[in-house]
Amino acid sequence: MTKRVKIDQLGGEVGERVTIEGWLYNKRSSGKLHFLELRDGSGICQCVVFKGDVSAEIFAKADHLSQETSLRVSGVVREHAKLKGTFEVGVTELEVLATPMREFPISPKEHGTDFLMDNRHLWLRSKRQHAILRVRAEIIAAVRDYFDGNGFTLVDAPIFTPNACEGTSNLFETDYHGDAAYLTQSGQLYMEAAAAAVGKAYCFGPTFRAEKSKTRRHLAEFWMVEPEVAFMDLEGDMELAEDFLVSVVARVLDKRRKELESIERDTSKLELIKKPFPRITYAQAIETLQKAGHDAKHGDDFGGDEETVISNGFDRPVIVHRYPMDLKAFYFKKDPTDPRLALNMDVLAPEGYGEVIGGGQREDDLATLEAAITHHKLPMEAFEWYLDLRRYGSFPHAGFGLGIERTVAWLCGLPHVRETIPFPRMLNRLHP
Amino acid sequence: MTKRVKIDQLGGEVGERVTIEGWLYNKRSSGKLHFLELRDGSGICQCVVFKGDVSAEIFAKADHLSQETSLRVSGVVREHAKLKGTFEVGVTELEVLATPMREFPISPKEHGTDFLMDNRHLWLRSKRQHAILRVRAEIIAAVRDYFDGNGFTLVDAPIFTPNACEGTSNLFETDYHGDAAYLTQSGQLYMEAAAAAVGKAYCFGPTFRAEKSKTRRHLAEFWMVEPEVAFMDLEGDMELAEDFLVSVVARVLDKRRKELESIERDTSKLELIKKPFPRITYAQAIETLQKAGHDAKHGDDFGGDEETVISNGFDRPVIVHRYPMDLKAFYFKKDPTDPRLALNMDVLAPEGYGEVIGGGQREDDLATLEAAITHHKLPMEAFEWYLDLRRYGSFPHAGFGLGIERTVAWLCGLPHVRETIPFPRMLNRLHP
Repeated sequence: MTKRVKIDQLGGEVGERVTIEGWLYNKRSSGKLHFLELRDGSGICQCVVFKGDVSAEIFAKADHLSQETSLRVSGVVREHAKLKGTFEVGVTELEVLATPMREFPISPKEHGTDFLMDNRHLWLRSKRQHAILRVRAEIIAAVRDYFDGNGFTLVDAPIFTPNACEGTSNLFETDYHGDAAYLTQSGQLYMEAAAAAVGKAYCFGPTFRAEKSKTRRHLAEFWMVEPEVAFMDLEGDMELAEDFLVSVVARVLDKRRKELESIERDTSKLELIKKPFPRITYAQAIETLQKAGHDAKHGDDFGGDEETVISNGFDRPVIVHRYPMDLKAFYFKKDPTDPRLALNMDVLAPEGYGEVIGGGQREDDLATLEAAITHHKLPMEAFEWYLDLRRYGSFPHAGFGLGIERTVAWLCGLPHVRETIPFPRMLNRLHP
Repeated sequence: MTKRVKIDQLGGEVGERVTIEGWLYNKRSSGKLHFLELRDGSGICQCVVFKGDVSAEIFAKADHLSQETSLRVSGVVREHAKLKGTFEVGVTELEVLATPMREFPISPKEHGTDFLMDNRHLWLRSKRQHAILRVRAEIIAAVRDYFDGNGFTLVDAPIFTPNACEGTSNLFETDYHGDAAYLTQSGQLYMEAAAAAVGKAYCFGPTFRAEKSKTRRHLAEFWMVEPEVAFMDLEGDMELAEDFLVSVVARVLDKRRKELESIERDTSKLELIKKPFPRITYAQAIETLQKAGHDAKHGDDFGGDEETVISNGFDRPVIVHRYPMDLKAFYFKKDPTDPRLALNMDVLAPEGYGEVIGGGQREDDLATLEAAITHHKLPMEAFEWYLDLRRYGSFPHAGFGLGIERTVAWLCGLPHVRETIPFPRMLNRLHP
């Protein structure tokens, strides 16, 4: 057998005889020529079967190949006559490895969403899904490289957690050898312990929400990265979020521009994601909503619609900080200049993609934190280990969480999160 | 305030006035000097408080600091008089941020395992745990960089799976909006779909086993990386596993030698991990056991003790291949030269650390796979989507799974997996 190569390596093999293994993506014929589009996962290339180059048997075989036939093709690599930088193979050998037993169900024609989701395992073979998968993988690599390269230590948070800290309604529960265990919604509390150990910690893994809501922005299972930094305040947290997000967007533009263009993302919008990000207070955000004619008042939380209105005034992410404490979890530190406000921040992506980051500074005073736990009617006992972090050398600290799927949706320009993860899990979707 | 720096940056600040924030790790005094060992997560440095350099108040304060007091210290950086490459701070300012409310429970003296595990959130602050955390993080980075750098695409497998494919006894179950869902034990089946899409795929995430066994090698929640490659056979799979493992060990030796030495790992043993790995068949492994006086016969599976005997003859990982089909999962391809054998392989680490990799070539013939599912009395319907991969352009493919915690145990030389993950989950351990 000749040298086995991947399609994305053909550029280095011009004039060489190679073998490629893959699947038929598309085919057209014209007289003495069959043009087979072969995909192997690394790319798609045109394999030209010329009647004069092959046996009559092979030429006939090439005429009867259906989509997704798995093939082994050998031939000489050449540059496309008209498209510089595009390479094709002049076929001399062609072996069918397996012929589809039925017509491949996903064709370029329009399919309903449910049909595509039911066939997610096959849908992943399409060009568009390839591009999204690769952008997702690049975002994840960018996230990890950013933290690994900036003095952070990866400290994985547990998935099983012993206590339903904030009520059980949005939690998935399982029987853990006789005890109830809950699937994590966030690794933050564990990252606070990790920050006390390694100074700058992050976790990256799946998190779970059993919400009944069926929206274009919610998954039951989604991936989140959560950095936490000792001796950092809210100001530092906003700077970190900004620097991090700019770095991730720049990396994806640098490495995955081709994929973004293939799914028709307007990359000029992403070129605008530079420092500094505008920063507004919650109070200013409420004003913005009111000016836009929204019936918003102080104390309201923001849904997707409100986030879109707030972010519409900006061409880059906007940081909204200092929400009312009443809207926020018990662990946020209160603003010393107005204790009704939390030292928190959300980062809203532009173009209506909404919140991609939420975080802030954590309460580091033991008595204040105990009072907050009591105020929220949470079980004090479940937080004893967390309170220990304030008992033994308490320290100012802050962090945030970034949702991977919302970031993929934003950078790819997808209206719904269902395409942002290989095998989505939603309210009515546990399959395949 | 002077320039805030991390302890691992002090080498670049000699002669400069800096501020460090961290926790007191240890302290000794001698007349006019207090030597404070400060840790900030990036490292530990000695801060020297000389009576002549500070106010009487600061000198007195420095004499009464307890372990884990959080501190802000300012002073001039200098190289240690006797230890080249070690830097210390001549303290001029010292601010106590928080004094521990109780004596820190973890001291250098011996503690019982349960006590340490109950205080895992505090135990992580010790030097030994830092070293293990950093080796773990390096292994994970090495794993990802290997696959990202070798043409693989990260394709996350789902955590929630709809079917209890191999019986429910070892599975964690949850109520998924009225349906039963199970926590994944492996992403492999999904990676087979991914390999058909992107050619070379891998997933990396937590996996779950509800086993009742309490051993030094089992966790309820553990992390696994699973590559899967289209058009690769068992031979290619063994080569990939070998190349991958050599690359991970070399990276850890290169980047984390200091940490390995701090936990007294004999790194000379790791220097031996080079290609090629010895390869033996299951039949040869049985012979080895019999020669060593073990009561082993063809058809027996290997436990930890057997793995140790088999691997003891080698100074590097040994690949054991072609186990009896009866011992293996339904999806393995049968050896065409002897259909009673599976085209599978396990990689056993040396020094008694046992299996770190398991994998092999998958059955790609639809009828054979259907027969195997029937033979194992598994629900055919649950596998319809998986069978689709054989219906639409079936292709030879292979892959494997590497357990992160067993790899950490091996590379760090730990007898038990409980220290290999930040927050271990075991039979009797769901807390903190």
